[in-house]
Amino acid sequence: MYESCGVVGVIYSDKRSVSAPLSIYYALYALQHRGQESTGITVHDGSQVHILKGMGLVTDVHKNYKLKDLKGFVGIGHVRYSTTGESIIENCQPLTVNFQDGTISIAHNGNLVNSLDLRAEFEAEGQIFLTSSDTEVIARLLVKKLLDHDIISAIDDIIRRLVGSYSLTILINDTLIAVRDPLGVKPLCFGKFDGGYIVASESVAIDTVGGVLIRDVHPGEVIIFKDGEMTSHRICRPKNTAHCVFEYIYFARADAIMNGKLVYQIRSRIGELLVDEHPVDADIVSPIPDSGITFGIGYCKKSGVDYMEGLMKNRYIGRTFIMPDQDMREVAVRLKLNTIPQNLVDRSVLLIDDSIVRGTTSRRIVDMVRKAGARQVHMRIGSPPIISPCYLGIDMATRDELVAAHKTVAGVEALINADSLGYISIEGLVEAIGIPEDDLCLGCLTGVYPVEIPGEECKRRQLTLNHF
Amino acid sequence: MYESCGVVGVIYSDKRSVSAPLSIYYALYALQHRGQESTGITVHDGSQVHILKGMGLVTDVHKNYKLKDLKGFVGIGHVRYSTTGESIIENCQPLTVNFQDGTISIAHNGNLVNSLDLRAEFEAEGQIFLTSSDTEVIARLLVKKLLDHDIISAIDDIIRRLVGSYSLTILINDTLIAVRDPLGVKPLCFGKFDGGYIVASESVAIDTVGGVLIRDVHPGEVIIFKDGEMTSHRICRPKNTAHCVFEYIYFARADAIMNGKLVYQIRSRIGELLVDEHPVDADIVSPIPDSGITFGIGYCKKSGVDYMEGLMKNRYIGRTFIMPDQDMREVAVRLKLNTIPQNLVDRSVLLIDDSIVRGTTSRRIVDMVRKAGARQVHMRIGSPPIISPCYLGIDMATRDELVAAHKTVAGVEALINADSLGYISIEGLVEAIGIPEDDLCLGCLTGVYPVEIPGEECKRRQLTLNHF
Amino acid sequence: MYESCGVVGVIYSDKRSVSAPLSIYYALYALQHRGQESTGITVHDGSQVHILKGMGLVTDVHKNYKLKDLKGFVGIGHVRYSTTGESIIENCQPLTVNFQDGTISIAHNGNLVNSLDLRAEFEAEGQIFLTSSDTEVIARLLVKKLLDHDIISAIDDIIRRLVGSYSLTILINDTLIAVRDPLGVKPLCFGKFDGGYIVASESVAIDTVGGVLIRDVHPGEVIIFKDGEMTSHRICRPKNTAHCVFEYIYFARADAIMNGKLVYQIRSRIGELLVDEHPVDADIVSPIPDSGITFGIGYCKKSGVDYMEGLMKNRYIGRTFIMPDQDMREVAVRLKLNTIPQNLVDRSVLLIDDSIVRGTTSRRIVDMVRKAGARQVHMRIGSPPIISPCYLGIDMATRDELVAAHKTVAGVEALINADSLGYISIEGLVEAIGIPEDDLCLGCLTGVYPVEIPGEECKRRQLTLNHF
Amino acid sequence: MYESCGVVGVIYSDKRSVSAPLSIYYALYALQHRGQESTGITVHDGSQVHILKGMGLVTDVHKNYKLKDLKGFVGIGHVRYSTTGESIIENCQPLTVNFQDGTISIAHNGNLVNSLDLRAEFEAEGQIFLTSSDTEVIARLLVKKLLDHDIISAIDDIIRRLVGSYSLTILINDTLIAVRDPLGVKPLCFGKFDGGYIVASESVAIDTVGGVLIRDVHPGEVIIFKDGEMTSHRICRPKNTAHCVFEYIYFARADAIMNGKLVYQIRSRIGELLVDEHPVDADIVSPIPDSGITFGIGYCKKSGVDYMEGLMKNRYIGRTFIMPDQDMREVAVRLKLNTIPQNLVDRSVLLIDDSIVRGTTSRRIVDMVRKAGARQVHMRIGSPPIISPCYLGIDMATRDELVAAHKTVAGVEALINADSLGYISIEGLVEAIGIPEDDLCLGCLTGVYPVEIPGEECKRRQLTLNHF
Repeated sequence: MYESCGVVGVIYSDKRSVSAPLSIYYALYALQHRGQESTGITVHDGSQVHILKGMGLVTDVHKNYKLKDLKGFVGIGHVRYSTTGESIIENCQPLTVNFQDGTISIAHNGNLVNSLDLRAEFEAEGQIFLTSSDTEVIARLLVKKLLDHDIISAIDDIIRRLVGSYSLTILINDTLIAVRDPLGVKPLCFGKFDGGYIVASESVAIDTVGGVLIRDVHPGEVIIFKDGEMTSHRICRPKNTAHCVFEYIYFARADAIMNGKLVYQIRSRIGELLVDEHPVDADIVSPIPDSGITFGIGYCKKSGVDYMEGLMKNRYIGRTFIMPDQDMREVAVRLKLNTIPQNLVDRSVLLIDDSIVRGTTSRRIVDMVRKAGARQVHMRIGSPPIISPCYLGIDMATRDELVAAHKTVAGVEALINADSLGYISIEGLVEAIGIPEDDLCLGCLTGVYPVEIPGEECKRRQLTLNHF
Repeated sequence: MYESCGVVGVIYSDKRSVSAPLSIYYALYALQHRGQESTGITVHDGSQVHILKGMGLVTDVHKNYKLKDLKGFVGIGHVRYSTTGESIIENCQPLTVNFQDGTISIAHNGNLVNSLDLRAEFEAEGQIFLTSSDTEVIARLLVKKLLDHDIISAIDDIIRRLVGSYSLTILINDTLIAVRDPLGVKPLCFGKFDGGYIVASESVAIDTVGGVLIRDVHPGEVIIFKDGEMTSHRICRPKNTAHCVFEYIYFARADAIMNGKLVYQIRSRIGELLVDEHPVDADIVSPIPDSGITFGIGYCKKSGVDYMEGLMKNRYIGRTFIMPDQDMREVAVRLKLNTIPQNLVDRSVLLIDDSIVRGTTSRRIVDMVRKAGARQVHMRIGSPPIISPCYLGIDMATRDELVAAHKTVAGVEALINADSLGYISIEGLVEAIGIPEDDLCLGCLTGVYPVEIPGEECKRRQLTLNHF
Repeated sequence: MYESCGVVGVIYSDKRSVSAPLSIYYALYALQHRGQESTGITVHDGSQVHILKGMGLVTDVHKNYKLKDLKGFVGIGHVRYSTTGESIIENCQPLTVNFQDGTISIAHNGNLVNSLDLRAEFEAEGQIFLTSSDTEVIARLLVKKLLDHDIISAIDDIIRRLVGSYSLTILINDTLIAVRDPLGVKPLCFGKFDGGYIVASESVAIDTVGGVLIRDVHPGEVIIFKDGEMTSHRICRPKNTAHCVFEYIYFARADAIMNGKLVYQIRSRIGELLVDEHPVDADIVSPIPDSGITFGIGYCKKSGVDYMEGLMKNRYIGRTFIMPDQDMREVAVRLKLNTIPQNLVDRSVLLIDDSIVRGTTSRRIVDMVRKAGARQVHMRIGSPPIISPCYLGIDMATRDELVAAHKTVAGVEALINADSLGYISIEGLVEAIGIPEDDLCLGCLTGVYPVEIPGEECKRRQLTLNHF
Repeated sequence: MYESCGVVGVIYSDKRSVSAPLSIYYALYALQHRGQESTGITVHDGSQVHILKGMGLVTDVHKNYKLKDLKGFVGIGHVRYSTTGESIIENCQPLTVNFQDGTISIAHNGNLVNSLDLRAEFEAEGQIFLTSSDTEVIARLLVKKLLDHDIISAIDDIIRRLVGSYSLTILINDTLIAVRDPLGVKPLCFGKFDGGYIVASESVAIDTVGGVLIRDVHPGEVIIFKDGEMTSHRICRPKNTAHCVFEYIYFARADAIMNGKLVYQIRSRIGELLVDEHPVDADIVSPIPDSGITFGIGYCKKSGVDYMEGLMKNRYIGRTFIMPDQDMREVAVRLKLNTIPQNLVDRSVLLIDDSIVRGTTSRRIVDMVRKAGARQVHMRIGSPPIISPCYLGIDMATRDELVAAHKTVAGVEALINADSLGYISIEGLVEAIGIPEDDLCLGCLTGVYPVEIPGEECKRRQLTLNHF
């Protein structure tokens, strides 16, 4: 499973409001799928900042009796993904810092490619870092510039210096700011609700506070929310963007609208295109839950093959499942997924999933389905082969681990023991998304990235920076 | 949501085995959907009993470092549902008691109709009760008889005395016993795995330990597992059973086989029959996740209407969700379910759900779908109207709360604001299940129960008791 | 360290009062020294019972936000000591049971000598036990008799049947009852405060609610508090009592008044008598904190030797101290006690402690003091040699472990490496306490017990039972 | 109660050792009295740093199963005091930062007078602060200088820049450093144990690892422990020091040796001097436990008046004691202290305590003693009147709160309702300590401080800085 982060910002026009924490809580709840490791909320009441952070799910960390002690009309929130070795409270966001003129709090979704360089630069000046996160680098850059510049100029400057992906919600004292990188890699949108504005990684968060989506934050745009007003600054007008395709394939909720596109329709359309690209004579389509379902619905609609659940998912997969030794790995798959043999026996089954990383889970599933009596097992995949790592915010795998980086489709087909294997083509994916290829980041599928990464090929997007 | 309980029993032939706790853990994990309030494991190592219990999910209570301290080759487990006012550790099962000849531990799924009478009888003798559960009553009956009878006679006796539903796994010292009431109301099945036997509420638990289902425990049957052997005793041969239909409609996992029937096929078939019983000219079928999905698949297959997800569920609904006041109830539905307006707008939408209890949630969902732009909203229900409470193990609602107890279908249709509403008929349900009506408990649908309940109508099943 | 339990009962005359939980909390807090393993409070509001229990200290278990949910004008409380293998929530008191006429809750300090017999008797009738505590036995006896007798007759009966020590506070629905065994082994007293009555193991608990001590509950007395009134029933008039001497030596707080005697004065007087019994030419008296201090003050007063702290105690000894291996045992003493070498060097030091059990700790302390430079180290002990175990409520040690059961005073002196060792004589102890020897339990010092214990010598007290 | 912090550093000569965490744990345990709010341990294993921090007591935070995961041969530790509004995990020390050449971890006892200035200076350069502690300021200064200087020069520089008190243990990668400010305000000493060196706030910590005190770290001295060797650098040779007198009066454990003086002897001597300075005809001396005890022993020795415990302390004062409203304040004192009326009645009682801050607690105690029947109540205090706040590391009180800042001794005497009140004189205190007045910090007693503090009088010490 890949994971990312989610960010939120909320501001009420009425500065006497104390509802920002609850609204942020609801919004984070809707973004829980973007990160389950830790979560935090920072709010401002006009005179001071209040913070609530912790390891765990939104509902575990932001308990009622704690949340009601936070007071504020404006604030930001974050859910964080889990990576190895860094699962510590210090890295829990939003990151809040004290500076000359008060406090700054930052919530970040994305990954900086040049953060080590920027760190080294600061460290060479004798600065120190208390966390291992990119966000502390952003905070330093921002504060340094705020010394003798206004907010918009300071952010203008960090946009010039940061390389990589960043959708940010920032709280400078009681001013809320939304920033999206010039490539628009990670999503960020905003809306209006009765009482104020809300910014969030996905539009689904806006719905939870009863708001309506206004639009995506444009790539290279900065929006400042202050005193009940919002002002937009287009710091950068990219000729081309680099929207992450994996948001459409896997991350985002199907009901999200992202860069103007409904995720559900894209996934369903990919399913339809898979019928054309890799037709097969199957008796049933059985999606691998949950991520294969919408692809499967599209496939069935187009092909007329019956949709049938041959695999059921256990809804209560906990976070700390006991798996005592290697031999038990097979148990793990069995605990997460059960087959329904009566739906599979003697049938030619078409499984459909969002992607293949190492191939080991796919192999176990194919074997389970065969063991349940399937005559044939075909596999269709809603993404093209992943051949290269992600450097822009997805915790995916190393190149060594990516099976498609080392094997042909036929090789993967053999490895996972499928009668046939078909990935959607890059052309098909781009058609389904409905955004020109030059405006997408296809780095993990092509090995060509929109920013320079040492040792990797790059096709830079052309950016035009405005000045403030 | 309705809730019930789940029970498990595991025995290894090799008494030196210490794996019973882990196998029970896996099995409970697969039964987590049957109860999320509390869980417990009792094992025996041949000389003494070990217990691990707690409030919460299986993965939260049975942590690795605790589980490895339990040693035993035989044991039982339980997951418990949540009811008002009784959510206390004292009621967490299995219940373990000390008696003259050692210890007895009992895990119970079901509900006794005469437990208050039995309690009163014991209390009149000067006995005391430390818990408020039926299980303590069963323990007392059992131990009293064990004074001067062997195990099978003692259980014979309790079967004669208990009225109601009970699927039990019992651990008397290191003997494992499975008991199912003569009406077979609640499910119970057993299987064999490499190393021993497993008993469980649903067959899905058997899969998690790599075992194979042997068969259901027969109504009125007692199976004793001891010294690597199993012996069956058919204490009672009912002319008719009273299998709970709600297990098929809602409780059981779709991949469970229960009384010889695959739940998935029954739900899918109900969906098909709904097409015949309540045809409608809809543009799409959008099941209410998760419980409506399999009905929806059957409906689509038969009708040819497109399956399309108009409602998405948040996968991370926590147990302690904050809902500060009444006005926020609407928020709750919005947080659990999001609409996908693009899939709904200007369409005639057919929603499908498993059942309607109070009607308030259905109303909110219909309103959400309308607000998202649906032209028409039709509702189909995979159960007949619920007109009477359950007394045999489901925490459903009082008669006052049951909307169908007081309103006609037309009245409910108006209440939930649907363009049309269609329930499956009792005949359709029975046909889909494939078990004769006289062998099912339809109490909540007909008001006629298989056991005598004060103030309710009863059609008793004919039972023939064997003697031991 | 020895440990026991503490019990409390509180009743307000005004049944609308909700302050019983807080008053019980304060009282338990004052009795915390009698048991740190677990604690519980049961209160009654006139219509139903409320319970709060848990493992840990009074301040940890009875948190403010939980305590304020308990409502009641009457209730009981308990602090429990720690013994091996039984440290489980099931044994946490008060024990609350449901019976024919409502609920009974019992808090017990003491130990029954015949509880296994009584258990066996019940078990032979087919009864079961859910806990391993004596208290469940008492509950059963009580309820059985309450079937056809009033409260006072029922308690009369249990007093006839129970052998051993028991100071009880009982809550039968909203009636509070205090019971003390006919021998008066364990303390129990009661007092009046503004608003009602309070019963407690030690008078110090009465002070915390601003009350005044009325008197001890007499041995064999039952006091019933109901409807603002108290009625005393002297069920048994013992010719002789058997007050535990270890309460005076170690358990009770020095500021407690017990059987009419101030503990402080007794300890101080023992210190004085030790001067006469075992004079020595010491430069300083350095008590072993905290239990040796009051003895030391008496010794100094009488002898004129300087009181000087040669040993300091770490005030923050936690409950879960890490002690990785056997070699670290010496570290443990060093962490609990530090010497002040400047106060010890080249001096003849007289240490004074309450008692010696195994002798290993005494040895380590003597060695520490020698290592700190003391010229001579003398040891004086506020109790006579402990030669036999306690069967009446103190978790002391087995006979094998008791060093004085196997060695002469000279032998113990050698073992602990002291220049001289002197215990107070039994005569001295009795004189200091000021209660006739025949009215004390000296079982652990003489091996002669006031009740029959298999394999031990007994000198029964003469009891006259009244009838109800 | 006043509170401060405690610091520790441990290094093993053998870099393969993994025992540093356990030794630090033992040492922190011995320093628990210096801070109970939070605690942390940072260790280094030669290649990387490991951290364990948390809110609470040493035994609560550093659990066995966590501690054994820390590996390292060198490390530092901290216990932190509690102040209002800052009780958050972010401020828990040691503070660990990443810089150009690795990691730095700092544990700090003391208070910087110019930290806001230094912060402002950094903030003016655009730097940010993630915590509100002085320690982050020290970390920044240190790292900045380390850019182009070696360790000793860098520390030389911070000593020049920091104004205030600071006893530091620092871990730069795997080098351990001890630093004490040129005034020697807060204590710091070091010792040797079998295997390596230990640095600690008080000598008592050295004892717990079986080590021996070498000496105090000199004011203005830096000691570097590396590769099994220690090197001392006397960066500053003050003509006069400013040792905190409150360490002798209250903070330090009586068994600590500080600046070459045994705390016990000083307190005992103060007690003796109080006899001369404020003689009174009392029947008994009853110290207020625990802080008044050693003063009381000295008083009794000199005066010949009987030492008698008229007040007993509850040993189990928890950290989260419930005190529902203002009226209950009196309860709080009653729960912490009980009188023994029999020791007080009709007597002229001399109470003795370490100090008086607001006077309210003293008043409550005097009233309790009177209520218990004392004929007269005299109060003697082991410190002179506190007339001015502490700016150098003690969380004492504001000037407004200090009763002696506004009232004469007669006024305080009246306020606390004592028959007589006598403070030790400054001359007496200085004599008892045995260090020249010019080498002590008497700021809180005289209002004249050893460093410049805006609005306060200052008598600067003369310092001679060496150069590196």
